[in-house]
Amino acid sequence: MSSVLTSRQENYSQWYNDLVLKGGLADYSAVKGCMVIKPYGYGLWENMRDQLDKMFKDTGHQNAYFPLLIPKSFLSKEAAHIEGFAKECAVVTHYRLKNDPNGNGVIVDPDAKLEEELIIRPTSETIIWSTYKNWVQSYRDLPILVNQWANVVRWEMRTRLFLRTAEFLWQEGHTAHATKEEAIAETEQMLDIYAQFAEEYMAMPVIRGVKTANERFAGAIDTYCIEAMMQDGKALQAGTSHFLGQNFAKAFDVTFTDKENKIEHVWATSWGVSTRLIGALVMAHSDDQGLVMPPKLAPLQVVIVPIYNKKDTEATQRIDDTVAGILKELKAKGVRAKYDNDDTTRPGWKFAEHELRGVPVRIAIGARDLENKVVEVARRDEKTKETVSLDGLTDTIQNLLADIQSNMFNKALKFRDEHITKVDSWEEFVKVLDEKGGFVSAHWDGTSATEDKIKEMTKATIRCIPLDNPQEDGKCILTGNASKERVLFARAY
Amino acid sequence: MSSVLTSRQENYSQWYNDLVLKGGLADYSAVKGCMVIKPYGYGLWENMRDQLDKMFKDTGHQNAYFPLLIPKSFLSKEAAHIEGFAKECAVVTHYRLKNDPNGNGVIVDPDAKLEEELIIRPTSETIIWSTYKNWVQSYRDLPILVNQWANVVRWEMRTRLFLRTAEFLWQEGHTAHATKEEAIAETEQMLDIYAQFAEEYMAMPVIRGVKTANERFAGAIDTYCIEAMMQDGKALQAGTSHFLGQNFAKAFDVTFTDKENKIEHVWATSWGVSTRLIGALVMAHSDDQGLVMPPKLAPLQVVIVPIYNKKDTEATQRIDDTVAGILKELKAKGVRAKYDNDDTTRPGWKFAEHELRGVPVRIAIGARDLENKVVEVARRDEKTKETVSLDGLTDTIQNLLADIQSNMFNKALKFRDEHITKVDSWEEFVKVLDEKGGFVSAHWDGTSATEDKIKEMTKATIRCIPLDNPQEDGKCILTGNASKERVLFARAY
Repeated sequence: MSSVLTSRQENYSQWYNDLVLKGGLADYSAVKGCMVIKPYGYGLWENMRDQLDKMFKDTGHQNAYFPLLIPKSFLSKEAAHIEGFAKECAVVTHYRLKNDPNGNGVIVDPDAKLEEELIIRPTSETIIWSTYKNWVQSYRDLPILVNQWANVVRWEMRTRLFLRTAEFLWQEGHTAHATKEEAIAETEQMLDIYAQFAEEYMAMPVIRGVKTANERFAGAIDTYCIEAMMQDGKALQAGTSHFLGQNFAKAFDVTFTDKENKIEHVWATSWGVSTRLIGALVMAHSDDQGLVMPPKLAPLQVVIVPIYNKKDTEATQRIDDTVAGILKELKAKGVRAKYDNDDTTRPGWKFAEHELRGVPVRIAIGARDLENKVVEVARRDEKTKETVSLDGLTDTIQNLLADIQSNMFNKALKFRDEHITKVDSWEEFVKVLDEKGGFVSAHWDGTSATEDKIKEMTKATIRCIPLDNPQEDGKCILTGNASKERVLFARAY
Repeated sequence: MSSVLTSRQENYSQWYNDLVLKGGLADYSAVKGCMVIKPYGYGLWENMRDQLDKMFKDTGHQNAYFPLLIPKSFLSKEAAHIEGFAKECAVVTHYRLKNDPNGNGVIVDPDAKLEEELIIRPTSETIIWSTYKNWVQSYRDLPILVNQWANVVRWEMRTRLFLRTAEFLWQEGHTAHATKEEAIAETEQMLDIYAQFAEEYMAMPVIRGVKTANERFAGAIDTYCIEAMMQDGKALQAGTSHFLGQNFAKAFDVTFTDKENKIEHVWATSWGVSTRLIGALVMAHSDDQGLVMPPKLAPLQVVIVPIYNKKDTEATQRIDDTVAGILKELKAKGVRAKYDNDDTTRPGWKFAEHELRGVPVRIAIGARDLENKVVEVARRDEKTKETVSLDGLTDTIQNLLADIQSNMFNKALKFRDEHITKVDSWEEFVKVLDEKGGFVSAHWDGTSATEDKIKEMTKATIRCIPLDNPQEDGKCILTGNASKERVLFARAY
C-alpha cells in the first residue's frame, strides 16, 4: 500500500527499494547479491525483451546460445579483458559433492577437482570468439550477426536490486565483420536502437555518447553508451555498444580470406542491455505513491474496478456484463487489460494497490455510472480522474495510453534538460554537483589523470562525450589546460 | 550437403551427430559437455518455447526468475533430492581471480574463498521453496503458479548434443497449492500440456504414464512422464511432471493458515521440458538426406528457389517480381518463408542444403514455369514434387503444410505402434529387445529389485506404467511372481 512507501524526499534510496519490493517487481534471495525477479517484474522484462528482440531481428540479427562456463585460460587471452573482469569472477572448481565421511552432511568431493577452473561468464566475448574461429574462413562467412539472451555473473560487493546484482539477465550481441567501417557502423546502429528503445518504449530520454578511456569496456577500442538521468540527479548508464576492433580476433586467431585472397583478422562489436533497465525505468518515472509504468511496456495497461453495491445483485450483474464487453473490445485492440472483481478487497484498497504497481489507466464503474452511460477514468502519471462516456471508450483509452506515454517522456525530458548545467569554474562545478546534481557540462583536458582526480575529489565521472558534440575552445575546470570540447560529468549509479 | 551424412543403417548414432552439426543446429564447444546452440537450432527452440509459454500462460501460469546459484546447505535439505543430484553438481568455491605472483598468468585468488560453496542449479526446487516461504502465509496466497525459463547444469560424464549436455536450457514450473488434490490435478494438467505439445506441434506421439520408484525424480512422490519412440527403437523421456507432496514444504518449512485457521504444509508440483526435445524431434522424423522439420515448429517453412537463365535478364526480373508477390502473400498469412536468390550457389546445391536443413516445402520457379503460370512444389517429408498452379498458391501451400504436419505425426504413430510388443516370457523379452527394439509390454512383479536386475541383464528400464493401464492378472517375466498389470520396458536415451 502506498502509505507505507518512504518518500523520495525523505530517503531516495529507501524509496527505490520500497518500490521494487512492495511494487512486486523483485525480492531479495538467500544468495548474497542475487535477486528473485517476481512475476510482475518479469512480465515487464518480457515486454522489454520482446520489443528489443524484434528490433534486433528487424536489423538482421539472429539469436544463439553459448556456454555459461568459460575456461579460465580463455578469459585471460585478451589482456585488458581479464584485467577488467578478474576481480569479480565466480569460479567453478569442482564437479561433485559427496557425503562427509565424518557424518556432517554433504561436502565438496576433493577427488572431483577440475583440471582447469571454469568461470561463470561475466560476459561472453571469449567463449564466443573461440567459437567464431570455427565459423569463419572466407569473407563469404561474414558478417556474423548474433545475439544471445542470457544470465551473467559479476561478483559485486555492493549490490542493489536491479541496478547492480551479482547475477543479472541481459542480452549480448556479438558481431563479426570483414571491415573496420562495417563494424563501426554496426556499433553505431545498435546504439541507435538502444536510444530508440529507451526513448520510445521506456519514455526515458538518453544522451548518446562515447566513453573516455577510463570508462571503456575491458577489451574495447571504443565504448558508445546511452546515459539517462534519474530523479535524484544521478546519471545511469542504460546501454553500451562496443567497437572491439580486432582485439578478440587476434586473441583467438580468427582470420578470414578477403576478396583479394589476403588473410585478415576479423573486426568485432559487442553490445548489451540488462535487467538494470528495470531499475532505470523505476527511478526515472515513479513517484511517492508508487511505480509509474510507461504504457508501451506496462505488464498491465488498464485495470477495471467495479464499485458494487452488493445488495443490488441486478446492478452487479449489469456492471459485470458491461465490463465483459469493454474488456473484449480492449483486448481485441491489443490492450493489456484486467477486471479486478476480487470481492475480498474494497475498491479503495484496489485503487492504492494498482497505483503502487503503476498501472497506467484505471477505470472505475458503478451502478449510477452505468445509468448515465459513463465510467470514471484515472490516469496514473498525473493522478487525475475524469468521467468519460461509454461510447467510444476503447478509442478514448487507446488515445489516453498514447498520451500518457508521450507525457511521461516529455516530463522526463524536461527534467533531464533542466539538469544539464554548463559550468566554467571548479567552484561552480562542485556547487552544481552538490546542490543541484544532474549532468555538468564542462571542459576537461582529455587526460585520464585529471579524470581520476576529479572522481576522487567529487565522485563524479565523465558519463560521456556526446556524439556530434559542438567543438569550442575552453579550459579544463580542474587543471586549466586547453580543451576543445565540453564533456558530461555526473555522479552515477 | 546430404551426401556427406552417415546413413541411419550404417551408424545411427553418427547419423544423429552429423545431422545436428551439418544441419546447423548446434556445435561442440571448448567446454567439456557444453554445446553451442547455433541460430538455426535456437530458432527452433524459440518456436518451441513460444508455443509452450503460451500454453502455460493460457492455464494461468506466470514467469519469474530465481538465482542461478544455490547454497550447498539448501540442496541438502531434502534427503532424496541431494542424493539424486550430489554426483553431478558444478560447485562455485571462489569469487575472484588474481595475477599469479610467479608470473604464470591468472590464478584463483585463495583469499576469495566463499564461506559456503554455491552450486549451479541442477534444478531449482530448493532455491524456489526457500523463497516461497516468504510468499505464503494464508490460503489466500495460494496457489502460486510460476514457471521459469532458465539454464541448468548437471555434470554428466557422457554427453551427447541436445540429448545429454552438462548445461542445458529448459523451463521448470514450480507450483504451490493448498490441497493434495489440487496439486495432483496440476501435475496431471501439465503432463497433458506436454503430451499435447509433443503430438500437435512436434508431430511426435507419446505415451503418458507414471514412473516406477527407481526412475522417479529425486524428491518426488510421483513422477508422471511422456515417453516417445525414436527410429532406432530406443525410447526417449520427453517431459516430466512431478507431484512433490509436502516434501519441499517440510524441508523449507513453508506453511499456511487454511480456511479453518489450521496451519498446514503447502503441496507442491514441478514440471519441465528441455532442449533435449530438439534431439527427440531430430531422431523422431529425420532421414538419410537430413533433418525433417514439422511445419508448426520449423524456423523456415517455405523456401523459394529461382531457376535463372542469367542471360535472360528480363525473365530473371519476371521471376523476382512473381516471387515478391508470393512471399508477400505467404507472410501475410503468417507463413515463415524466404527467397533464396543468392547467386553464388546453384539450384542443385540449394535443394540439397534445404533438404539437409529439413525445410518442409520448397518452391522452384523458372522462366518456363512462369509462362505456364505454374511452380514446382516439393515436400520434404515424402520427397515428392508436383507442378502447381500459381493461382491460389498460398492456399495450396497452407494446406500442404497442414498435410505434412499430420502426415509426419501419422508416420511416427504407425512406427511407434508397430514398436509396442506384448511379450509373456523372458526369452521373448530379450529377443524383442535385441532384434526389434521398441517398447516391450510385459508383466513385472512391482519390486525395485526385479527392475534393477532386468536393467543389469538387458539395459532395458521401465519407461512407465501407462495411465489408464488395463488391469490383468499375469506373471512377472523375470521372477514369475504375480502381477496385476503390464508395464512398458525399453532401452532408452
